[in-house]
Amino acid sequence: MPSRSDITYFGAGPALLPTAVLEEAAAALLNYNATGLGIAEHSHRSEIATTIINEAKADLVSYLDIPDDYEICFMQGGGSAQFSAMAYNFVGNWVTRKYKEVQGSESDESTVLKLKSAVENLKIDYIITGGWSQKAAAEAERLFGSEHVNIVADSRKANDGKFGTIPSEDTWNLSHDAAMVYYCDNETVHGVEFPGFPKCLEPGPDRPIVVADMSSNILSRRIPISNFSAIFFGAQKNLGSTGITVVIIQKQFLPQPSAALMRKLALPIPPRIFEFETIIKNNSLYNTLSVLDVFIAGRVLKQLLLQHPDKVQGQQILSQKKAQLIYKTLEAYPTIYQIIPDKAARSRMNICFRIKGGSAVEELFLKDAATVGLTGLKGHRELKGIRASNYNSISLEGAEKLANFISTFASQNGTVVLAPISTWRLAVPAAEMSKPRYNAYDQEQCGDREKHKHYRIETADFVRIEYAPVRPPTSSDWDRYGLGLRIGTGCGPVRVQTTDQYDMRTSTDAAVPAQCRASSSQDFIQETGPLWSPPMRLRNEPEKQGISALRKKEVELVYDLTRFQGRGDITCLPTKVDLGLMRADLLAFEASIVIPHAQVQDTIVAETQSPDGC
Amino acid sequence: MPSRSDITYFGAGPALLPTAVLEEAAAALLNYNATGLGIAEHSHRSEIATTIINEAKADLVSYLDIPDDYEICFMQGGGSAQFSAMAYNFVGNWVTRKYKEVQGSESDESTVLKLKSAVENLKIDYIITGGWSQKAAAEAERLFGSEHVNIVADSRKANDGKFGTIPSEDTWNLSHDAAMVYYCDNETVHGVEFPGFPKCLEPGPDRPIVVADMSSNILSRRIPISNFSAIFFGAQKNLGSTGITVVIIQKQFLPQPSAALMRKLALPIPPRIFEFETIIKNNSLYNTLSVLDVFIAGRVLKQLLLQHPDKVQGQQILSQKKAQLIYKTLEAYPTIYQIIPDKAARSRMNICFRIKGGSAVEELFLKDAATVGLTGLKGHRELKGIRASNYNSISLEGAEKLANFISTFASQNGTVVLAPISTWRLAVPAAEMSKPRYNAYDQEQCGDREKHKHYRIETADFVRIEYAPVRPPTSSDWDRYGLGLRIGTGCGPVRVQTTDQYDMRTSTDAAVPAQCRASSSQDFIQETGPLWSPPMRLRNEPEKQGISALRKKEVELVYDLTRFQGRGDITCLPTKVDLGLMRADLLAFEASIVIPHAQVQDTIVAETQSPDGC
Repeated sequence: MPSRSDITYFGAGPALLPTAVLEEAAAALLNYNATGLGIAEHSHRSEIATTIINEAKADLVSYLDIPDDYEICFMQGGGSAQFSAMAYNFVGNWVTRKYKEVQGSESDESTVLKLKSAVENLKIDYIITGGWSQKAAAEAERLFGSEHVNIVADSRKANDGKFGTIPSEDTWNLSHDAAMVYYCDNETVHGVEFPGFPKCLEPGPDRPIVVADMSSNILSRRIPISNFSAIFFGAQKNLGSTGITVVIIQKQFLPQPSAALMRKLALPIPPRIFEFETIIKNNSLYNTLSVLDVFIAGRVLKQLLLQHPDKVQGQQILSQKKAQLIYKTLEAYPTIYQIIPDKAARSRMNICFRIKGGSAVEELFLKDAATVGLTGLKGHRELKGIRASNYNSISLEGAEKLANFISTFASQNGTVVLAPISTWRLAVPAAEMSKPRYNAYDQEQCGDREKHKHYRIETADFVRIEYAPVRPPTSSDWDRYGLGLRIGTGCGPVRVQTTDQYDMRTSTDAAVPAQCRASSSQDFIQETGPLWSPPMRLRNEPEKQGISALRKKEVELVYDLTRFQGRGDITCLPTKVDLGLMRADLLAFEASIVIPHAQVQDTIVAETQSPDGC
Repeated sequence: MPSRSDITYFGAGPALLPTAVLEEAAAALLNYNATGLGIAEHSHRSEIATTIINEAKADLVSYLDIPDDYEICFMQGGGSAQFSAMAYNFVGNWVTRKYKEVQGSESDESTVLKLKSAVENLKIDYIITGGWSQKAAAEAERLFGSEHVNIVADSRKANDGKFGTIPSEDTWNLSHDAAMVYYCDNETVHGVEFPGFPKCLEPGPDRPIVVADMSSNILSRRIPISNFSAIFFGAQKNLGSTGITVVIIQKQFLPQPSAALMRKLALPIPPRIFEFETIIKNNSLYNTLSVLDVFIAGRVLKQLLLQHPDKVQGQQILSQKKAQLIYKTLEAYPTIYQIIPDKAARSRMNICFRIKGGSAVEELFLKDAATVGLTGLKGHRELKGIRASNYNSISLEGAEKLANFISTFASQNGTVVLAPISTWRLAVPAAEMSKPRYNAYDQEQCGDREKHKHYRIETADFVRIEYAPVRPPTSSDWDRYGLGLRIGTGCGPVRVQTTDQYDMRTSTDAAVPAQCRASSSQDFIQETGPLWSPPMRLRNEPEKQGISALRKKEVELVYDLTRFQGRGDITCLPTKVDLGLMRADLLAFEASIVIPHAQVQDTIVAETQSPDGC
């Protein structure tokens, strides 16, 4: 039962929030400022709400030193909403400018024809450096057609199809008179951050209209605000909780053309709540806003202002220090850790790395880290590996704790080389699946209405675990041995009834059956839905032999591994797992083995077939 | 310092939430299920989040008895987002159907031409019964052009330009083959609710596609879900907290055409996050969702299911009982209370009424109600008067408490007839405004950087309060006397520094100056922004004479009204108010007088002119 102080959470967002702020928010939920009413119940049109909104805006202006000719608004829908909103609004403003230039009336046919001709040259520029800028560009292509979207640069082109760099500015292909040039200042998935404001976008005679997604690095370093026409960021990384998105926009880019004119030009019209002009006119209260989320953001800002008398400059120094600490520790073990992005583009916010040996060792890293309270470190599903998100709410102590763990883990696992995990699926003969049985326990517990069909599966289900130690295992190796068994379903998410009975036995004479087919462990998890029972644990308990049949929440599979101790040539640990009475909606299981100092060759995933083929 | 149990809040939304749910949410904010991490910090992609989302969906299905061919999703942006989303998606699905009918390819010019011709007949039908359906229709006109929007009925037409009825169905003008017929089941502003599902929209051979906004009456009565193609509701009234909006939609209406085809047809393309198909494919997690808000909604649903074994039927009986109790009490005092909407269209959720005598008596009602813990009763700014929102979180005891108060107030104020409040504005000579002075207090407090200019305003500023008692006042009348003074700004919202010094004196020889012009008090408040100091109170303290000069948070203006006691012919109480040292950004003040049993003729609003005319 960990308390908050036991845990340092490095999740990529929603991120950790300061405990003091959450304590204030929890109290405010019940009774805000002794009004007898909670913050989520007070009207968004009340003076209370307006004060909270205006204070948060004022503190943001102060902390980031935002010039007077910028407006701030709070919106909903996160970054994904802004991918659309920025394109709609900046194209709308571009049309407003063109309309002014042609000096006609929109009810006049010739004016519309001139504008239509101008629209043929409409371009929106995107610099693609990771998953988020790529999504933003894809949304613009969806809304306006690819003919209007110009990819200024794509970092995958010069990097073997992978993200991880910022393309050199001399390769950038900027449009003339683009409605905007868009980039993502920090890519959370790939751990790529612009080291500073791009030189070629700096204000000049032909000043480009620059829009940036700063969702994941806002408030962590100084920004030359006046170089941007707009900046946006979801709150849930460095500012607060999910539910509000902040837009900072220069006033001159607000005006929008009439919807009628946009229809005539066959350009898409945004929903009203995506129009910055409307939201700003209503001080972010055109529609109901979650005042609780603004309150949390406001408290975070107040805390930052209190912590750093020199405002964002102070946080910049701290963020840099934390990031360097972690990167330097990783660099100290080049045979163990491999930092994913290019050194010049490394994010201070999302530190992405792989561990030599792949998923099996990474799983061990995550498990060991969790035992010392370091959580949320699992890499993004696309990139895998480890990702330590080093947002503002990670204290220097938290970063030090992680750096120490990285060192310790490397020292203990210095020579580990584990093979990538592959997966097999085992089919259960349909004939077996069609023999329903009823579990006496379930009948008692649930009555007739909720009775489930159960199937005895014992023919082709077994786990064959092969491993090849790089050196003969020593007795201490076995202390860190782990095997997980997870029960899921092939029919979409289901809550696992862990009170069911599982009967497990070992066998040493089974062979891998012909029906096996390879698949990745990742596919398996996605296919069966994200809802799994907690991994069932196998602990090294040499005094026990075989697999015990248990009727409790966690099934423990126990091998007597001392039998193999010192025998480096043992590469096969074949096991037959009889799932015994199994509910029809629990149709898959996965077993994985993690042995330090050993070359684990396989994780076996067995999936039974449902009788109705669902 | 009221506690939650002292307050029954009748606000129109965000609404009161069950205390037990808020207690759970407050604990979850800090440490969810003993994970050491709060609910707003856990990843929206975690098993924890998925479980919360799936349980909330399952409980909603169970409570409302939603058929299998409907999908449920959680979105952001409230009702205003759905005004756009419903139009985009149902037009998109209409195009999908037409595209299927023409059996061509979208890359084929003739197919596009056929579809363009079909689009000429595109209609979206709206039934307008209040402010929200009106806004929804306006958004459709904005997105698609008024030629595509058919107003089936508008309740203002048969009701002197006012909302308050449901137009008779035989006057409805439904389109053939409309993309959807849209209505708002309960209009919160005007207190109008459909008594049941409209007869002429019931499923038949030409089954209409019916979409309803049920933001404010969902979960309060049975709904024939299968009569609807889609239903939506913001959570913050009957379900939970601001931040999530629920859409229940029949699967067959999900498919959307390609963005390229929509562009060819010059129809607007929604942002990706407004596409129901996308949101549902991702189990509401296409973009980051506030899991805290889903958690709160889930707990409210669990509580409702526990409270009502017969689910929504049970709540329906309770809601009806509460509403009848309040309406019957209002009807018992026809000389005092006037229920606004037509009896046949009265909302069980938002009970809107006026009090004879107008704003002055209504202010008194609100003030007296607040002293017994009944709050949030102020009517919508458009309709004024009183609005008691009787959502699910108002207990039967809460409704009884309100009904009792309504009775008591009526008995005590049975003969009150007060005239409507009118307003004057007083200009301060610019010459006076140009004389800056500095307040020693501010210099001390703020240092040079934050020093403000102050102006002494004492020439044309005065309050002339006229009243005509309907009968000679008795000594007990004065016990309930109140006068409020509010300080605001003509330059947008500002926090009022109530520590400033105000010097107030009375005078009996002033006359209304020629510069006065009439305006409504409402206009004044809007013009100066919603941020006001708390009304300054005047209490009846006969022992004091004149206006005291105070230097504290609340300025008390004290008249010796005993001088006038028993003199029914006194209709004028002229007063000169000298604001003394006044900050330049505090440029307006309002004084109002409320005297029961008296005919108050005026509230005086004086507005000074800023020297720079801002």
